[in-house]
Amino acid sequence: MAEAFAAVEIIAAKRDKGELTDPQIDWVIDAYTRGAVADEQMSALLMAILLNGMNSREISRWTDAMIRSGERMEWSAVKRTTVDKHSTGGVGDKITLPLAPLVAACGGAVPQLSGRGLGHTGGTLDKLESIPGWRASLSNEEMLKVLQDCGAVICAAGAGLAPADKKLYALRDVTATVEAIPLIASSIMSKKIAEGTSALILDVKTGNGAFMSDPLKARELAQVMVELGERAGVKTRALITAMDVPLGLTAGNALEVRESVEVLAGGGPSDVVELTVLLAREMLDAGKIKPLMDPADALMNGAAMDHWRRMILAQGGDPDAALPVAKEKIVVNAESSGEIIEMNAMKVGVSAWRLGAGRSRQGEKVQAGAGIEIHAKPGQEIKAGQPLFTLHTDEAARFERALEVLDGAVRISSTGEKVERLPLILEKIER
Amino acid sequence: MAEAFAAVEIIAAKRDKGELTDPQIDWVIDAYTRGAVADEQMSALLMAILLNGMNSREISRWTDAMIRSGERMEWSAVKRTTVDKHSTGGVGDKITLPLAPLVAACGGAVPQLSGRGLGHTGGTLDKLESIPGWRASLSNEEMLKVLQDCGAVICAAGAGLAPADKKLYALRDVTATVEAIPLIASSIMSKKIAEGTSALILDVKTGNGAFMSDPLKARELAQVMVELGERAGVKTRALITAMDVPLGLTAGNALEVRESVEVLAGGGPSDVVELTVLLAREMLDAGKIKPLMDPADALMNGAAMDHWRRMILAQGGDPDAALPVAKEKIVVNAESSGEIIEMNAMKVGVSAWRLGAGRSRQGEKVQAGAGIEIHAKPGQEIKAGQPLFTLHTDEAARFERALEVLDGAVRISSTGEKVERLPLILEKIER
Repeated sequence: MAEAFAAVEIIAAKRDKGELTDPQIDWVIDAYTRGAVADEQMSALLMAILLNGMNSREISRWTDAMIRSGERMEWSAVKRTTVDKHSTGGVGDKITLPLAPLVAACGGAVPQLSGRGLGHTGGTLDKLESIPGWRASLSNEEMLKVLQDCGAVICAAGAGLAPADKKLYALRDVTATVEAIPLIASSIMSKKIAEGTSALILDVKTGNGAFMSDPLKARELAQVMVELGERAGVKTRALITAMDVPLGLTAGNALEVRESVEVLAGGGPSDVVELTVLLAREMLDAGKIKPLMDPADALMNGAAMDHWRRMILAQGGDPDAALPVAKEKIVVNAESSGEIIEMNAMKVGVSAWRLGAGRSRQGEKVQAGAGIEIHAKPGQEIKAGQPLFTLHTDEAARFERALEVLDGAVRISSTGEKVERLPLILEKIER
Repeated sequence: MAEAFAAVEIIAAKRDKGELTDPQIDWVIDAYTRGAVADEQMSALLMAILLNGMNSREISRWTDAMIRSGERMEWSAVKRTTVDKHSTGGVGDKITLPLAPLVAACGGAVPQLSGRGLGHTGGTLDKLESIPGWRASLSNEEMLKVLQDCGAVICAAGAGLAPADKKLYALRDVTATVEAIPLIASSIMSKKIAEGTSALILDVKTGNGAFMSDPLKARELAQVMVELGERAGVKTRALITAMDVPLGLTAGNALEVRESVEVLAGGGPSDVVELTVLLAREMLDAGKIKPLMDPADALMNGAAMDHWRRMILAQGGDPDAALPVAKEKIVVNAESSGEIIEMNAMKVGVSAWRLGAGRSRQGEKVQAGAGIEIHAKPGQEIKAGQPLFTLHTDEAARFERALEVLDGAVRISSTGEKVERLPLILEKIER
């Protein structure tokens, strides 16, 4: 690899709205990963990319260079077809928990590398870690064994997977360069491609509680990611889904595990069930897997629950253990009677975060029991004084700021006004 | 000062084309200076400023915050009015050397804090350091004494002057964020305002050899700087001057000192003499100083030379010592006969830099004797085989790349074509 590209030249090219060449991209990612390009140079480049963009060739090469910064996993030892799902994150989005064992029950193999939460949305690993004994960190050999034995594995990405992305992500977090479509798309897709899945369904959230609140931006992100996946040989589809209202009736780590188990037991909130089943069918279809049974049936007949229990056990967790419960709780009641017209997902997410369910900085601890239970959702009738939310936390001092942000989160109307909600699925994007 | 502004929020505000508030600017400059804002955060902010701009209030506050990061000098002990000049830098621009003692001879006091060169333009301190014994670093007390005794002092800015600018300048250099008008203007003006001069003439260069090759950009920079100076109570004017052709007949440290001494002796190239006299008159006028004599006379009657000698002696230099001469030289001859139509200042500057007169990185050493002598300039007739340039360096290996960039630097025409040059003074900007 030519060492002839000075970082300053590359930054200046993007600053001046130029295209970066393939060798420039290869060099800058490699040099940054090994420390030859300084953080202050990369952050200037990231800001220039955020403001001046990258074309599809540049994004593809950037992603590829991040993949090549580390190992690429492969699952040829697994007899089943590997399929995975990634969500861009939303309030109450616990779908991965029931979905992975559900797809396993239907005949797929789900090698899911997940992350932790940052900000108002929770992380899959944080949720699962509320299960006593459950371990997020597996060696590659352990991961393969769980995948072969259980049909699904959910664990943390090892240090060898896209190390460039890990370094870039930490840098973007402190330099206000998170929100650039080329950088979001390459970050997600470098990990998913390096993960070695053969098919991938992207759940791109939109609405006030999503990172991409603007549906047009969500669609653009989805299109870029589908293109990146397909170019890398991964069958990739994206669904743009609603995140204007929290998903399900819980936001918080152990609270969401409890709700996921309800879904696996054939119950649970209808929106969670509907989205889980829909994503499972898409995953099986994208992977060209002939289903052993229909996903809706697998939730009802115990097959999905069976795979969940095996998966949790295989990673040291006790599926029968009592989940942690927060020390303090308070109930928020409806102030007036009528139909619930709105429930702002962002406000509910921030409130759960302030209760201790989320973190503000990488590495911070989260509370397993903290979060919010939702007792009624848009479209439902409620009477003044009836419970709307229960707030949970280990530290009562957190209630004040959690309540503050909930102010105005819910609108109740008695004038016959209609609920205007985003449809659960706004659009499907494929190549 | 409120510590409530997270750096990320400030970066995000500018990234999203917002205006930074006064407290945000004060905080981020102060926090960066004391290390509470990291280099990678500041470089992202600088790139956002470069691409999204700052309005005049923001630039003014940014400049003010940089001044307040350090000491502000004051010259109440000096009986004369202080006046200074700053040039944005050009090839062969040695004007400060004859100008400071000339203005002193005419009745002004010139407290000039200068810099070192970077890239294709030389630095005043590098030039003066080719004089045996001359010291650039003076204490504030020494600076005051030289100014009082000689009427002019040229020295390096101490560490206490605008430390925020020093840190920012080094960062901009490695992050491709040098070329932003708000950042250039605030960098120059923070030092000049902190220097404590009561009047200031800005020589803003334009043309191919200048940092602002576009005259419209040069004018914009001049306007911003004049506004910053006037807001801070410094009588400030700017001249936009030509840098399409090198100034004078030399580019290089000792070579330029020799030419400056010729000007002080009443000789020297006409463009250098003209610009020196013109800037001296502007400085005296802006400072409302009744001149002891006209600057043109002061060059002829030895008064300027007398002040030069005293100033050099006062800083440990020997004005009678032989100047360093490079070990190697070669002559470049004209390839055809005719009138010289063009002589590209940038190419000549880069060639002198490659010969060893300039540096690529802060802290690098420069060669005192290296550089280029120009034997004929645009408008003059030349015959094939007559000398055009003499190249000087201590290392013969440098000739190859120095000659390479000179290729095409000079255009000679025998068809009666007219020279098209920028006028020496394009425009004068005042409030």
